[in-house]
Amino acid sequence: MRGLYLVTDRTLCGNRPLVDIVHLALKGGVAYVQLREKDVSTRLFVDVSQKIKTLTDTFRVPLIINDRIDVALAVEADGVHIGQEDMSYEAARKLMGPRAIIGLSVETWDDVVTAQELDVDYISVSPVFATPTKTDTKNIWGLEGISRIKDYSRHPLVAIGGLNVSNAADAVMAGADCIAVVSAICAAHDPLNATRELLDTVLTALKKRAT
Amino acid sequence: MRGLYLVTDRTLCGNRPLVDIVHLALKGGVAYVQLREKDVSTRLFVDVSQKIKTLTDTFRVPLIINDRIDVALAVEADGVHIGQEDMSYEAARKLMGPRAIIGLSVETWDDVVTAQELDVDYISVSPVFATPTKTDTKNIWGLEGISRIKDYSRHPLVAIGGLNVSNAADAVMAGADCIAVVSAICAAHDPLNATRELLDTVLTALKKRAT
Repeated sequence: MRGLYLVTDRTLCGNRPLVDIVHLALKGGVAYVQLREKDVSTRLFVDVSQKIKTLTDTFRVPLIINDRIDVALAVEADGVHIGQEDMSYEAARKLMGPRAIIGLSVETWDDVVTAQELDVDYISVSPVFATPTKTDTKNIWGLEGISRIKDYSRHPLVAIGGLNVSNAADAVMAGADCIAVVSAICAAHDPLNATRELLDTVLTALKKRAT
Repeated sequence: MRGLYLVTDRTLCGNRPLVDIVHLALKGGVAYVQLREKDVSTRLFVDVSQKIKTLTDTFRVPLIINDRIDVALAVEADGVHIGQEDMSYEAARKLMGPRAIIGLSVETWDDVVTAQELDVDYISVSPVFATPTKTDTKNIWGLEGISRIKDYSRHPLVAIGGLNVSNAADAVMAGADCIAVVSAICAAHDPLNATRELLDTVLTALKKRAT
């Protein structure tokens, strides 16, 4: 897991179709797309996932479904992202199979310790900063949180929460391998350019960190 | 599909645990239990489903999960019930396998016609009467609706919506093979006796219809 990771939020897309925003983000170079839907019917979730799967397949980018393993299985998505209130990692792995990408949000230090024993493909440090798109958070990790988790954890780190072009490099330098954004792309006036700028920032920081 | 079918609604159980209400309904003789949960986390849905699966297994009663095929797969439920806004029958069957019970709500005559070509295990005539527990309905079938569907459809008919001990026999005489109730058990002062009375009413009507 390296690079830029789009997590969708249809409510931030304004009157622009979600599928169009995802298409622009893919053109701009996101390495992963996570489809997150709340308060939509299963039928709509499956329909949108199928449309986006066609796009992500074209760009050879993995599609990861938030929480809903039924939807992931129905559209043969590449993986699922689970939070601490979603299905357990063990149940998710059993249903998704050994080859699926499974990411897990860590909200507390206990979550980080528990994740160490699990064969998750990444952990998501959530949230790095306070964010209006997710308000039920227990803990704001900050850059110090990323560093602390990086020193301890064997898993690739995805950082999420309040990240944008002004702070993405700091999160990478603190230890994030991948930067996940929601509003920085979904709510951007120009999602394609926003993605390109973010990607450039992230890749430059990853290069700097490696040297 | 014959007899009495409990569909759960935790909001109607008052301060009594849902699992206790289901236990009483099983003691009282329900033939099917459908666990329907809205606005709960996937983790809680799975946890409750596992507890109820242990109970339904003891009573050798099938457990059917509403909408969420991921939850059904995780707890190895006996089936799923899908509505017109849930996953398609074809996708549900593919994920659940050939032996699972799959029930489908029919809300319009078009739904009834479409269902004729599907290998669903039953169709659910929804709602028979207006009901406060489901307000997004397109159509109230009435007893005439049950009769009309019974004449046309090759599938067993489950009737749901506003059914209780005062009108369950009429629904059976109109053609329902199985009577599904929500509040008539979940909100009952004495769920065990309410179940017994309903079951007696339904079985008496089924016997009468057969003669």
